[in-house]
Order: sequence, then structure tokens, then C-alpha cells
Amino acid sequence: MHIVRYALHNQIYYGIVEDDRYIARLEGGVLDGLRRSGVRDPREAARILTPLPMPRVFGLGYNYRAHSQEVGKKVPELPILFMKPSTAVIGPEEAIVYPPWGENIHFEGELTVIIGKQARNVAESEALDYVLGYTCGNDLSDRVLQRRESEFGCLLVGKGYDTFAPLGPVIATGLDPSGLRIQTRVNGVVRQDGDTADLLFSVPYLIAYLSRHMTLLPGDMIMTGTPAGVGPVQVGDSIEVEIDGIGILRNHVVAAGFRN
Amino acid sequence: MHIVRYALHNQIYYGIVEDDRYIARLEGGVLDGLRRSGVRDPREAARILTPLPMPRVFGLGYNYRAHSQEVGKKVPELPILFMKPSTAVIGPEEAIVYPPWGENIHFEGELTVIIGKQARNVAESEALDYVLGYTCGNDLSDRVLQRRESEFGCLLVGKGYDTFAPLGPVIATGLDPSGLRIQTRVNGVVRQDGDTADLLFSVPYLIAYLSRHMTLLPGDMIMTGTPAGVGPVQVGDSIEVEIDGIGILRNHVVAAGFRN
Repeated sequence: MHIVRYALHNQIYYGIVEDDRYIARLEGGVLDGLRRSGVRDPREAARILTPLPMPRVFGLGYNYRAHSQEVGKKVPELPILFMKPSTAVIGPEEAIVYPPWGENIHFEGELTVIIGKQARNVAESEALDYVLGYTCGNDLSDRVLQRRESEFGCLLVGKGYDTFAPLGPVIATGLDPSGLRIQTRVNGVVRQDGDTADLLFSVPYLIAYLSRHMTLLPGDMIMTGTPAGVGPVQVGDSIEVEIDGIGILRNHVVAAGFRN
Repeated sequence: MHIVRYALHNQIYYGIVEDDRYIARLEGGVLDGLRRSGVRDPREAARILTPLPMPRVFGLGYNYRAHSQEVGKKVPELPILFMKPSTAVIGPEEAIVYPPWGENIHFEGELTVIIGKQARNVAESEALDYVLGYTCGNDLSDRVLQRRESEFGCLLVGKGYDTFAPLGPVIATGLDPSGLRIQTRVNGVVRQDGDTADLLFSVPYLIAYLSRHMTLLPGDMIMTGTPAGVGPVQVGDSIEVEIDGIGILRNHVVAAGFRN
């Protein structure tokens, strides 16, 4: 099932995608259970938004062996985590703003987990029960600033600019996250072509690990790390992250001062 | 002025501390302006809470020269930032839970800035206009896990356990943040005795810097880093962070499974 959050006639709704033409509108939010309102909205008229507004976003570094190799890092023995601020999140077709002083901004296509239920000390074997669904993510990164921060063992601004966390287009439920093909294309050219089977720390492991240290909340997002093939983006680029069973997250890059 | 968030008769209010005995209750929240309700509550009966529930918390590493020296780091040329998850936040007198596998958990007393207005591309000279007030913070850190994460240039779980961000007791308005004495005491013994005059990156600089990359939101907290003298805590310890003009943030450390 594909759940979308969308704007229509200046209102925001959740709905279930029925087919190419219709969305079955839900009553209320998506975290308290799915109640169909009986209304069907035309998909054409709806503007699809990021799945949840202002989420907490946890990111993973070096979670694919081949990516660790391409950037010259050893393979970590524990999940390497950071947060992206909620203000970085944008939806499908929204503009990624290239910073005025940007030198080397990279795309990173990522399978993103959406937590559905509060989770604390969850066993790995039960971790998937806490998942609402999955979406596509793009963990944009300023490599220059990232390197300067990481030298001191921390990371925020290099991954945290406004618009640096496109997420969407749908919440895909009922997926097995352990073997999904993930592709990133820049202007139609395939740059990343990975498989979540190659995740160093699996989705259930990550949920169990995080929940052993902190309480995960409904709506939390976990961006699970990027496969090999990362590279720079430029103003004017169109970037697509496509994941099996989810769909395509597409965003374009604009210069600062020309947002959307 | 000292603003407090407090629980009384199963309700939560904001109020202005009048004296040792009374709090002038406000109508509504604290981010939309302060409107006195006309009710006075007895301070004795009120349980003081953390200033804002579930804030975004930005943390600073290595922002006092003497602390960088004591941990053997060079002095950074840019603010070294990370986030602590909102679920780590607790209030005054709430218990810090020592993790079952904890080995070397440290206290870090810190001046904490509370943002009052949305801030984007704010000049350093105007940055203090965006501050609601200041409070005391304790940036608890698992040094073992912190080191393992930081080796890969990231930091989350080592600073992010539930209860690892005590914040409070008041929102102190009208303070000059540039020369405040800050003390941390463990079981009454002074362990940190610093002055915010020694901040490597000042409060106005930090607000301007963050706002150049991302939108700061009302209620955001910036923990400005810790002076020299950090050290381990043990189950049973009482930790006090005291800052001139703000007051004392006191928390005790309990073993996991015995929270409050």
C-alpha cells in the first residue's frame, strides 16, 4: 500500500494511492491508524508532500561496504549515526538550494525507514513491527564542511542545510527492506545502483540498536546510508532516487535566492 | 526575569517567578508572548519542568580552549556541532539513568541558549534579538561510545541516551551571555568552574553561524559547550550545574530500571 500526504485546495490530507488517477482520502493523520473518509481525490490535482512534516531524522554513515571503500574509510563495527535537522526536510519536486559558498555538494540516495510506534528496548526479531513504512531519501552533504566537522568527531552543518533532506514520495507499507534495488540518477544518468541486501547494519538491527539507547517516536525517520557511486550535484541538475516498491523521489537543484 | 514551566494539580503552566513563594501564572505558552493570567501559584506546590518539551537540541564540542586541552584536541576553526535527540531531555530533579553497560559517563555543565524567534541568515550584531532566554544544561556523554562514533566523524548515541540532556530550571531573560560564571558540582564538590567569557565561539556568533545554514525555530536549544573539568558520574551522584543569573540545575544519577 502507498500512503501519501498531499495538498489539495489549500488543505493537507493523507490518502491511499488507488491507481494512477485516484487517492482515497483518509480522515486525520497517519500515525493513529488509517481511517478512510470515503472521499476520492484526483491524483492529478494533488501536490504530493514529504510523508511527515518536521520529523526527527537519523542518518547513517558508512553503512554500505562499497561506499566505505570509495571514500577510503574502514568498515565500522557499530552503526555510525548523526541527525539531520527537521528544517532540512523537503518533499518531492521541491528545490534543493545550492549554497552560495558551496564547493562540493553530493547526492546520496537512501532507503528511509518511517517509525510507526514508540520503540524502546525492542528486540531485533520484533523491530519491523515498529515500522510504519518506507520512503526514498536523499542525504545531501557538503563534503568540504562535512570533512572539517568530522575531523573533530562531529557532524551537523555539513548535512544539515535547509533543503538537504528530500524525503518521499510515498509511505510504502508491507515491504521487506532486506533486498530492495536502489538507484540514483542525475539528469537521467544512473550514478548509484545498489541493493539494500548490502546494508552493513540491517533495518531491524538499526531499530533495535537505536531503541536500546533512546526512545524512538512515531514519525521518526531513519536514513539507512548510501551505496557506492556518490558524486557532486550542480545548479540545474535533476536528481532521482528510485527504490523498488516505493517509487521515485525527484528534486532539482537551484541557486540560493531562487527557491522553487 | 525568570520564566518557569511547571506542573500543578495535573496541569502544566508557564509562569514568572515573583519571589521564593509565588509564581505569576501565564496564559498559554511562552513563545507567543507573555500574558499574565492574574493567578498566583504557590511555588512550593509546583513541580518545575524542563523549559520546553521535546526541543531540538544543538550541542557544541570543544568550545572552551581549556576543555580542548584537557581532552587533547586542537582548537577548532569552526563551530563543532551535533544534535542531541529531543528524547534525551529531562527537567530539574529528574533522574539521569546510568546505562547498564555504561563504563565512563561524563557530566558537562553548559550555558544553554533558548531561541525565541525564527532565525535565518541573521547577522551576528542582531543575533541576540532572537534569544528568548538562557538556561543551564548538562550534556551527559558516554565517552566510550562517543570515541567509537567520533572515529568515523559522527556523533549521536554517545550523547543521545534518554535522560542525557537535563535542561532547566528557568528561562532567564535579559542576561548578557558573555561573562557568566558556570560551575558544576558533583555531590557538592566543585568540578567545573568556568566563565562564558572563555567561549571560543560566542552566543551571537553561534546563532549567526547556524542561521546561515539552516532555519532556527522558536524553542530550539543551543548547548554552548563545556569548560574544563569534565569527569565521570556514578549511580547515586547528585550533579548541580549553576550559572550566574539563572540558578541551579540539579539531577541525580540512578541505575537503569529505577527511573525516578
